Amino acid sequence: MKDFAEFCHVVADRIHSAVSKNVRDNPLAIGTQVGMGADGTPTDLIDKIAEDEAMKAVKQSGLNMNVLSEEAGFVDKKAEYTLVLDPVDGTRNACRNLPFYCTSIAIGKASLSDVEYGLVMNIPSGDVYEAKKGNGAYLNGKKIKVREYEKESSLFSFVSGGIKKEFTERLLDMPHLRALGACALEMSLVASGALDGYLMFNPVARITDIAAGALLVKEAGGVLYNAKGEELNLPFDVKDRTSVIALSCKEIKKEFL
Amino acid sequence: MKDFAEFCHVVADRIHSAVSKNVRDNPLAIGTQVGMGADGTPTDLIDKIAEDEAMKAVKQSGLNMNVLSEEAGFVDKKAEYTLVLDPVDGTRNACRNLPFYCTSIAIGKASLSDVEYGLVMNIPSGDVYEAKKGNGAYLNGKKIKVREYEKESSLFSFVSGGIKKEFTERLLDMPHLRALGACALEMSLVASGALDGYLMFNPVARITDIAAGALLVKEAGGVLYNAKGEELNLPFDVKDRTSVIALSCKEIKKEFL
Repeated sequence: MKDFAEFCHVVADRIHSAVSKNVRDNPLAIGTQVGMGADGTPTDLIDKIAEDEAMKAVKQSGLNMNVLSEEAGFVDKKAEYTLVLDPVDGTRNACRNLPFYCTSIAIGKASLSDVEYGLVMNIPSGDVYEAKKGNGAYLNGKKIKVREYEKESSLFSFVSGGIKKEFTERLLDMPHLRALGACALEMSLVASGALDGYLMFNPVARITDIAAGALLVKEAGGVLYNAKGEELNLPFDVKDRTSVIALSCKEIKKEFL
Repeated sequence: MKDFAEFCHVVADRIHSAVSKNVRDNPLAIGTQVGMGADGTPTDLIDKIAEDEAMKAVKQSGLNMNVLSEEAGFVDKKAEYTLVLDPVDGTRNACRNLPFYCTSIAIGKASLSDVEYGLVMNIPSGDVYEAKKGNGAYLNGKKIKVREYEKESSLFSFVSGGIKKEFTERLLDMPHLRALGACALEMSLVASGALDGYLMFNPVARITDIAAGALLVKEAGGVLYNAKGEELNLPFDVKDRTSVIALSCKEIKKEFL
């Protein structure tokens, strides 16, 4: 697993360089649709550039692992471990140069519950959030944990759509509220204590969006549910979808579920 | 004005260094309340560190100008021009290390309408948005303009509170929506085409929050209103407040006002 962690840093750095260069040099081109991803959503040029860079790194590493990626789908090498990759999470932000998007990389065997390593890199700032199962969560090498909940000063980030009417009104009455638009990075912010929770009520998250972020939340002391209030899980299948309620503590659950 | 622009870059760079260092080294201390600002809101340690740095730069520059700042209020040097400063806009984000906050610096005489220069620096990424009256708007030295409006793919950022019921439902039904939490940076994103609009319906914006961002929006081809649909204006007075509707084009106005 040590090798895998080092390798994930290399992949993230290479994606970071390629994406930053293209956001700077080709801002109008990066949002061009260049195909359809294995997950059934359009592939923008920036997604393709980032994924090609990651695939090159996998090939050059010589490591024996399968890859599950938003665009390429499942590349089966009959290996024990699978690299679960979203090269650019928050593509809409990236394509507009709205500086909040990231790379999400995780390693596990078959489902969210067995993910052993996760890394999320904030591409505009270069910050790296990282978690190893049973070994805690880190931001740029410093240990992080979820925030102690104080209702009066709470801060949640949400995704529009699918919100029950009673929560809609509560949400919009909150003095402070966020909607940031990059799932893996928002889950990382729950882990680091920047947010008290991340609320995606519609089932639109894929395993590639949440594999790393979920481990970060758990290792930082947080809790994860789907919108039915069940424990969050998802198989390694790029076509499956789930809702995501990531919270700093289980006491918050009753406020939204 | 050339001297002033160069000076504003120096101020922004110094604030950037001081804030970044403290976010990294003293993350738990920066949100400590250390006093009350001239605008009637609490001053957090990070605001004070940033403003002290700016004030030192003003003193050392030898330039004759008044300063209007969120914390210090109006420092009257009987000069023609006033530096309008929000050292940290998005303090709540900064104090939680939620990587979306900025420095806002503008130069004008007496009100929003006569601002001649504005600079907004995204502190986590280092990006600089800059506008000179009659001379366009720039991101890291490259000319920017507002986005051509396409309703289907529109992206708005809003501030919770004060939203009319009919707009609440429309907002939350939008497939994509943002709430980012740093007014000056969100206005800069309208200028750069990252957002189609920024919606703050409650009158909570101060001149220090909007002086630079408003010039950026105008110079990039956008339009500005208050929530009554009137042209946005505000005197250089740290106690005055306004709502802010910043849009890429006037056609969007009827959707929200």
